[in-house]
Parts: sequence; C-alpha cells; structure tokens
Amino acid sequence: MASSPTLDSDTASPARRGRRRRTAQSPGPELFPQKPFRQPRHIYRPIEAISADAVEAIHTASLRVLQEIGLDFLHEEAKALLKTAGADVDPSSDRVRLDPNLVMDLVGKAPSQVTVKARNPAHDLEIGGPHIAFSSVASAPNAVDRDGGRRPGNQKDFRNFLRLSQYFNIIHCIMGYPVEPVDLHPSTRHLDCIADFVRLTDKVFHIYSLGRERNLDGLEIARIGMGLSHEEFSKTPSVVTVINTSSPLRLDTPMLQGLMEMARAGQVSVVTPFTLAGAMAPVTIAGALVQQNAEALAGIAFAQLVRPGAPVIYGGFTSNVDMRSGSPAFGTPENMKAALAGGQLARRYNLPYRTSGVCAANTVDYQAALETTLSQWGAINGGGNLIKHAAGWLEGGLSAGFEKFIADVDLLQMLAEYLTPLDVSEDALALEAIKDVGPGGHFFGTAHTQQRYKDAFYPPIVSDWRNYETWAEAGRPIAYEKANMLYKKALEAYEPPPLDPAIDEELSAFVAKRKAEGGAPTDF
Amino acid sequence: MASSPTLDSDTASPARRGRRRRTAQSPGPELFPQKPFRQPRHIYRPIEAISADAVEAIHTASLRVLQEIGLDFLHEEAKALLKTAGADVDPSSDRVRLDPNLVMDLVGKAPSQVTVKARNPAHDLEIGGPHIAFSSVASAPNAVDRDGGRRPGNQKDFRNFLRLSQYFNIIHCIMGYPVEPVDLHPSTRHLDCIADFVRLTDKVFHIYSLGRERNLDGLEIARIGMGLSHEEFSKTPSVVTVINTSSPLRLDTPMLQGLMEMARAGQVSVVTPFTLAGAMAPVTIAGALVQQNAEALAGIAFAQLVRPGAPVIYGGFTSNVDMRSGSPAFGTPENMKAALAGGQLARRYNLPYRTSGVCAANTVDYQAALETTLSQWGAINGGGNLIKHAAGWLEGGLSAGFEKFIADVDLLQMLAEYLTPLDVSEDALALEAIKDVGPGGHFFGTAHTQQRYKDAFYPPIVSDWRNYETWAEAGRPIAYEKANMLYKKALEAYEPPPLDPAIDEELSAFVAKRKAEGGAPTDF
Repeated sequence: MASSPTLDSDTASPARRGRRRRTAQSPGPELFPQKPFRQPRHIYRPIEAISADAVEAIHTASLRVLQEIGLDFLHEEAKALLKTAGADVDPSSDRVRLDPNLVMDLVGKAPSQVTVKARNPAHDLEIGGPHIAFSSVASAPNAVDRDGGRRPGNQKDFRNFLRLSQYFNIIHCIMGYPVEPVDLHPSTRHLDCIADFVRLTDKVFHIYSLGRERNLDGLEIARIGMGLSHEEFSKTPSVVTVINTSSPLRLDTPMLQGLMEMARAGQVSVVTPFTLAGAMAPVTIAGALVQQNAEALAGIAFAQLVRPGAPVIYGGFTSNVDMRSGSPAFGTPENMKAALAGGQLARRYNLPYRTSGVCAANTVDYQAALETTLSQWGAINGGGNLIKHAAGWLEGGLSAGFEKFIADVDLLQMLAEYLTPLDVSEDALALEAIKDVGPGGHFFGTAHTQQRYKDAFYPPIVSDWRNYETWAEAGRPIAYEKANMLYKKALEAYEPPPLDPAIDEELSAFVAKRKAEGGAPTDF
Repeated sequence: MASSPTLDSDTASPARRGRRRRTAQSPGPELFPQKPFRQPRHIYRPIEAISADAVEAIHTASLRVLQEIGLDFLHEEAKALLKTAGADVDPSSDRVRLDPNLVMDLVGKAPSQVTVKARNPAHDLEIGGPHIAFSSVASAPNAVDRDGGRRPGNQKDFRNFLRLSQYFNIIHCIMGYPVEPVDLHPSTRHLDCIADFVRLTDKVFHIYSLGRERNLDGLEIARIGMGLSHEEFSKTPSVVTVINTSSPLRLDTPMLQGLMEMARAGQVSVVTPFTLAGAMAPVTIAGALVQQNAEALAGIAFAQLVRPGAPVIYGGFTSNVDMRSGSPAFGTPENMKAALAGGQLARRYNLPYRTSGVCAANTVDYQAALETTLSQWGAINGGGNLIKHAAGWLEGGLSAGFEKFIADVDLLQMLAEYLTPLDVSEDALALEAIKDVGPGGHFFGTAHTQQRYKDAFYPPIVSDWRNYETWAEAGRPIAYEKANMLYKKALEAYEPPPLDPAIDEELSAFVAKRKAEGGAPTDF
C-alpha cells in the first residue's frame, strides 16, 4: 500500500494542508475493542463458481450483446465520442453498438488497482488486487432504530451514520449517503451532505452522479477537503461515484455525465449494472451475468474513452428477485454464486471488483444475520475489493438501521480476523506447552496460555456468550437490544476528526456561494 | 456413488429383506418444497487456511507429540496390541509412545472413502472425496422449544427429533441421540434408542461407544435392521460411532472398546479430538491443531491395528473458548480457520473429514444465524465430508432446539443449492431473451422467464420476504415463531418408513432378551 510519509509533518505544503496523518481513532470504551484502521487482504484463493470455459462463454456472449444488440446511451456528447471512436451509433435513436475489439482495447486501458486518497492519509485505500475495503450502507430512503422506529431519511440520521462510519475502524469508506436526508432541499442537499462527509469524517467518500452540476460541486468539495490544487487533485483519485446502468442495456443522462466528469477529473467510477435476475435481467443467473458483464464493460470502456487510464471498478450486484413480489432477494444461493462468478469476470479483465454485504430482512433478526453472512460469503470468497453496504443495510436497501450497523461492524471485524493469517510459528505450534501439560492435564493455567489469552481470540461485541441460565435470568436479551445500546455509546464516544480551519472556511465559502446560486437543477 | 440396483426388487434375498429401495419421502405440505434426498458435492475447491509447508509443520509436530510425549491408552488389551505392533508401552503407566513410521504405516491402511449403507438403499451415503453428508444435532442434554421451554432430554423429544431427521431429505444421517433421553434407564437406554433409530428412520445412524456391551448391542440392532447376516454385516459399513479423545492426549476405556469393536465389525469410527483452544488444548489455534492431529492419528492408527482397512473418519472439532467463562465458542474466526486447516490435514492423509455446523447461541436469534452460518462457512469451505450437528444445535451443544432444527434445514437446503453447479448452457446464457427484451425493457413477462421462474430460485422456508409494511402489519413475526409452526407441521406430515414385519419382530425379540438380561452395566 502506498504510504505518504512526508505528510506526517506540520510543514506539509499548504496545498496539502488537509492531509495531516493522524493515528487511527482511539478504541473508545471497553465495549468496542477495535483494532487500528487496516484493510483486510485476500489471503485465501477466491472460490471459482464456474470454469474458465464458462467465464469465456459469458465474456463472449456479453460482447455479442454489445455488438448485436447494443446499449442505449442517453447523452449526445457521449454518442459523439463513441462515434468518433468507431462505434456504430444509430442516428435515429440512442442505440450504440460496440465492436468487441473496441470494447476490449478500451477496457485494457483501465488500471487494475487504484490508490484512493483520504483526507486523513491513515485512511487512504487500495482498491483492487488483494485489498478489501468495507463501506457503510448507502442510499436508503429510510432510517430505522429501536427508539424512533422507521422514518424517512433526514439530516440527523444521515449525520449519525457518518459519525458511526468514522468511529469504527472496520468501516473503510462511505460510499453514498447512508440515508437520503429528504428534509434537505434537493437543489442544495448534495452541498450540505458532501460538506458533512469532509467535516464529520476523514475517510474516502462518494458523490452521486445526479447531473453534471452535482458532480462538479462534489468534486470541488472533495478537492477543498483534500487541500489539493486542481492540478494535483486531477492526479489524485480521492472520491468515488457509483454508475448504475438502467438495466437492461441503458446508460441514462446523469450517469453518463457522471462517468464523463469523474473520468475527466481523474476520479473513481464504480460501474454497477442493476441486474436482478427475473426482473431487469434474465431469470437465469448465467444470463444475468452476461447482461451484467455487457453493461459493466460498456460503462468501463466509455470511461476509458473519456480519459484513458481513468480509475474504474467493475461492479456486480446480480441477485434474484422474490418471484411472488418482484422485490430483490439477497444472501440467496443464487446471489452467492453470482458474487463468486462476478469476481471471476472482474479478474478476467484485471479490474477491481465491487460487490455487497446485504440482506432482505426487515430488522436485526435471525434472517438478517443469515442473509448478510451468506452475502458476505459470496463477497469475500468472490474476491471482492470494495464491499458496499457492509454495515447497516436492511430491507433490500429500503432502510438503514442503526442497530444493524453495529451488528455488521461485529461481523466485519470477525471477517477481518478470519482474513488474518493463522500464526504457525514454532511458538504457536506449542509443542513445549503440550509437553508441559501432558495427557489428562489442562491448559488454562499454563504460561503459554497466560501469556496469550487476552488477545488470543476475537471478542464479539453483539453475541451473548453467557450460559442459558444467566442469559435467561437477564431477561433473554437479544442482539437488537444490545446493538441499540452500543450504537448510542459509539455516538457518544465519537469525536469529529480535526480539520484545518482554512479548509473549513474555504468549504463554507464554497457551499454558501453555490447555495446563493441556487444549487443544482432539480428537474433531472 | 455405489448403487444397489438389485435391491429394488421384492425378490431381494431374505438376508437383505430390510433393504428395499424406496423413493425419497414425498415433499409433504407446500410449506416444505423439498428436493429429493441427495448428498451435495464439493464443486468448489476447498479454501486453504495455511500453506503446504504449514500443513507439514503441524504434521511433523504432531508426530513428535506421539513419539516424545505419547498418549495414555486406558485399556490393557489396547496396550498389548500396541506393544506387539512395536509401540513403546510404558509398563508402569498407560503411556504409549508411537514411532512416526508406525503411525504413518497404519494411517496409510485406512480407506479414503467409505460407502455407508442405510436400511433404505436410497439413503446410502458416500463419506469422503467430494461427498457431503449433513447430520442432525447429537448428544444434547436438553431439548428446547417455544411451547415447552427448556427441559432435560426425554424419549418423546428424542423420538420427535428422529422423526424430523427422517422427514427432511437434507438430513442425510443421524449421528447420535439428538437429545439424551434421561427418562430411560441408562442400562437399557441404548436398546430403546437404537431400536428407535431403526423403526422411526431408515437413514444411517450412530451408536455411542459407552462400554463394550453397548457397542455389541448397537451393532446387533444395526445388523438386524439391515437384514444382513453377521458375515455380510462385517463387510458392509452401516453404522457409525464417534470416538472422542479425552483431550489432552488420552483415549479412555470405553472409547478404546468402541474403536476395537467397531473396527472388528467392519463399522465406521469417527475419531474426533475434543481440542478447545485454551482449555483442553493450547491457546493457539496452530497448537490446538497439532494436538488434534496427534490425537486423531493415534486413534485412526489404532483402529487400523485392530483391523487394517477399517473405515475411519478424521474428526476436527477445534474451536476456542470464551476465556471469561471457559465455555466453548463456535462460528468464531478462530473456529473457521481451524475448520479449514483441519480439512487440509485430513486431505494430507487422504481421509474423510468430519466437522460441524454449530453455535453458542441460547435460542434461534441473530447470534444463532451468525455463528451457525460462519461455522458452516468453515465446514463447507474446509471440505467437510460429514458435517455433524448441522440441524438443531444450540448453546454449544447443551440443548437441541426444535425451531433451530427447522432454521438449520433452511440453511442446509440453501447450502445444497449453493453447491449445485451454475447452469451455463447456451440456453441459460439467454442471449435471445436479452435480444427480445432489449434496452429499457423488462424480463418478467418473457417466455424465457415464464418457462423457468417457478424453479429458478431457492424458496426460503423461514425467511420472511414480505415488505416492511406487510411484515409490520402481520405483527413483525420472527423466524423463531415461524419455525415453531413449521416443526409441528413437519411432525404431523411425518410417516414412519416401512419396516419388514420380520425385522420388527427380530428387533423386539432382541431388545426384550437384552432387557431381561439387565442391559449393560452402568458403572462406567
């Protein structure tokens, strides 16, 4: 991982005054025995759900989709760019057909790994290769907790989710508004929200592609937060957007504007087709993957056309729907296999892979743990590099839950521990300890145990390991209740990360100016 | 998998009259859309938690344990056998030290895969290689459900768990009493329980090694149930025992008696060291694995000494303890890594691998799903062949839960689906469907979807996929409540498998005779 050793000093260049390295947040109360901020790595070989031949079959079929059917590109400038590059652009519609060689030439220009800088260099990320980054829930229309129930997204909840995302070291970045704060006017909401990202957190964050003005405002706020000149910023990936195709086979205007502005600014686009099998994609997972791959390659190729080498991430979100209701299902066997195969496809193109830790459950219950853990099974074993929605996601994305956030932090910490190599040193093999104890003895009291027991095992923060009697006497507490208490403790323990007053001032001035100008159009 | 085509006929030899092939149980009510009885296969490469060098380091260290420290063998005949084979048997104690070459020579005689015959040939099992068998919870002292709460194990609950184990096709075998029926006298309990296995189920089952008489009685009941002559039975693995070492480094009298009688009878022993890191094994997972491996190899080598080629299974149960309480923890990161590495060790010796799907949760809650799913992550990805306790286990084994049984059946069915290869046929790639729908369309109504949607996706039996509003209006039902209703429906739908009246009679006569003789001694 790229380090930024020169940024430790108070004498860092004024242009980088925002990037003072700070040690990872203190662990806070005993309730949260956190490890320092660190990205887990894929130390195990990814699971391959399909053969190399099947990967090629999906690849070939997806190129045929792009060549024979094509995609609708709902943007004139985009179509002009594609035409110049040699694509077959239908003059009477938005349909663009892409030659396989053109697609593969362009996709080949994308970097296989990207360093994304954070306002706090200790929170810089590597996306791609063996690296894993977990991000918190994004884009939920509702927030929910035990005390206030389920309510439309609002600024207070939005900010509290940012605070939790900052507080927990296992959350590596914030990939979207955890909840949509609908109490803020849409024309200026992005200004307030993105300024909050800079002020309340010092981790890598995301700006939505909802029209050119919002992208430009978001890029400018990110640049101010980083304390970089425009030129430096354009060489320093520091902010991420997600480009969702309007599946099937359509890239709409704001998404294309976003892809163009982010690529031009040298910033990161995650191209994630919204391919739910049986709804916006074929009912077969293989067919949904063909469509996912076609749409992802189209978006990625287009970004490379705008700026060769623009950082992009291959996104996979293929799952099935509940055929009775049409609503998306997650953590299903089909979702797991799609996540594994999606990773194989991303690696086929040597691209970083974005996937998700998600569920369809309505609250922090048995189902939530089952589905979220199974979706992480697919995400981690699929070789996911950016694992989105990994803390707080409920109801297939319709709500962001505070208690779920804590429960997921526990799961993510366990997964990070699982991804820590087993110590197989001579000392860990413990031959001497086994000799000392001998047949029929006990290891509790040995020196080998005494020296290690405090840190030997991951201590869960939500699970209740008390025996049945003690647990029953305590009123059979459930994870939901414990997580409720814990999220409030975490909010109490939260401290805003330091921010250079000059940056704060520049940020305020920019937001005020843009608000005075009326923000961004809301007729998208 | 070996088939028994001649057994379909009513003219099967009288000696095999118990083994009439019957089609898998009908799916019963719409509530349980079961697939036919079928063992899942490892279609994905197992995850390797440690390097090949580390596997060798653990192997070598464990052989040093056996050579330099040795094991206590608490049985005179066993020690005599070992001495004759060239082991270093301490005349003044139970300590036996084993030369690495002796151990490896003996372990090399064990078969890599074993066909275990069931009373119903449709339920025969392959244990080893790519095959997976799930068994229900075993050996819990308590039973628990929502209606009756937690109570000491009893015959009624015991029998109901057998019925559930029989009813669900995803349960492949019954590896122990789901609950210990303490209302039956210990001297004759095994007679009643094993006869129940034969009568209430027609799947492979387990007999405990709790003294020579019980093993012999269990073997005889199994033989009668199979309708085999003594000679045929000794060539037909049809019943399984678990040999737990008294960790650290001790094989006690009843376990050695069991190993001897099962090996002599050509039946299957699962040698599972009880190596909880920090308690009966070193606090380091690598050290606990060294001890696990030493103990497993010692038991397996001993079985081969008794009868070369005796079917054995390498058991791994290494997990950590909660260092505050000393109670075992499951589904922890340490447990997951131990399960993966345990599989590598078993494969190192070309032996079938037994592991577990377990948790420490007190009821069917968030924690139960989290821990059970993570322990299955270790079991499945570790290449487990026999996955014990996979339905109904709670409280680290202190209770067997009826609702947990149903929740686990759902998980196991999902895992079986996950282990079904993704269809990547031309038709599944769906190029024509994608063409038909085109950009901006929808797949719900297409012929491709209509032909497939009914069976396209796994339908969960416990999860509630209704949207928030509908779910909230329904009173926010939880998995526990739904599972409670479902287990009772399954018991209603259960039908005892047919049993030849002559076998039934022979069984009754044997049990009556042994009861009249007083059963087995209870002073173990």
